[in-house]
Amino acid sequence: MSILIIGANGQIGRQLVEQLVRDGDPPRAMVRTEEQAETMRRMGALPVHGDLEGDLAEAFKEVTQVVFTAGSGPKTGADKTILVDLWGAMRAIDHALHADCHHFVMISSRGAENPETGPAAIKHYTVCKRLADDYLIRSGLDYTILRPGRLTNDPATGHVRTDWPDAEEEQWIPRADVAHAAALCLKTPGTYGKVYPLFHGDQTLQEALV
Amino acid sequence: MSILIIGANGQIGRQLVEQLVRDGDPPRAMVRTEEQAETMRRMGALPVHGDLEGDLAEAFKEVTQVVFTAGSGPKTGADKTILVDLWGAMRAIDHALHADCHHFVMISSRGAENPETGPAAIKHYTVCKRLADDYLIRSGLDYTILRPGRLTNDPATGHVRTDWPDAEEEQWIPRADVAHAAALCLKTPGTYGKVYPLFHGDQTLQEALV
Repeated sequence: MSILIIGANGQIGRQLVEQLVRDGDPPRAMVRTEEQAETMRRMGALPVHGDLEGDLAEAFKEVTQVVFTAGSGPKTGADKTILVDLWGAMRAIDHALHADCHHFVMISSRGAENPETGPAAIKHYTVCKRLADDYLIRSGLDYTILRPGRLTNDPATGHVRTDWPDAEEEQWIPRADVAHAAALCLKTPGTYGKVYPLFHGDQTLQEALV
Repeated sequence: MSILIIGANGQIGRQLVEQLVRDGDPPRAMVRTEEQAETMRRMGALPVHGDLEGDLAEAFKEVTQVVFTAGSGPKTGADKTILVDLWGAMRAIDHALHADCHHFVMISSRGAENPETGPAAIKHYTVCKRLADDYLIRSGLDYTILRPGRLTNDPATGHVRTDWPDAEEEQWIPRADVAHAAALCLKTPGTYGKVYPLFHGDQTLQEALV
């Protein structure tokens, strides 16, 4: 079993790497630079070189599960949203298929369930996330899709909810809890084929996701 | 029979409207402003209100064929490429399905056949065009997809080629010939289910497309 984390150096990615190392399942961490590789080595992961806008073949060698938690981020233009969050995700799904991966966990976003009714300011982003999710669902891979609300840097609570809070201001979740949720999905076949909205709440991850 | 032109006020759209009016098939011309509506009336078309980023229901009433030749244009950001060229096209295809349209002509682009090997500078655009094309192909509608090369304002020649010129500088076509090709596709069931690269050349449209 070998887990590949795409976006390992991101804010959710690093917490997921930490968690998997702690669980005794040190993952392959996809990185673009030697500096990121060194960080991942220090954390106990196995760095592998890969670029969502370039070569991915090396990164997918011997991989059986994937977590996609990469994102072009808010500082780049919408062209990168297309090339990384959408096209990059589709290329990663293609590579997962060719590598005989059996399970792909996608960190999607609140709003992807219906870009028409989601926040207008990030509609171009929720469209790209939605289309990447749809591509994964159609791919034939076993998938788990997590659609977290507004991400915060609060400490993990270990508790979530998968129904929508009525109040918009309650539609948030700590990144740490998203990372823990992804780790649980990796080892829980009961989460395959599911799409979960994810917000802070009062159910344990086990109760909410399984 | 009622043909809807989406992007009627664009550079290809206007020439297509002219051609259809000349052929005795005055189309419905989708517009966003009263000024555009007046232009379309003067040209002999029936203006209908519709917005690829807003309401489309009115525009699709009683429509049996659609030509999508809209584009967000080079002056807007890539967010509009997502919202108009990709998501707008997908919404138009959905409306065509619900309106019982039987045929959808998409003006796509050179590069959409493989964004990985196409021009890097417009890769985000060719990705969006490719995904819109794929959505149309999967939709169940009869479709014709035209993938013209670099568009010029040269006068119509009535002649094209559908194989790729080796030299990049030969990969162009007048917008007028693209408009004529679209008009031919509308009345030619032999073009249904086909995807045509389209460049200036020496075959008649009839020879090249049918």
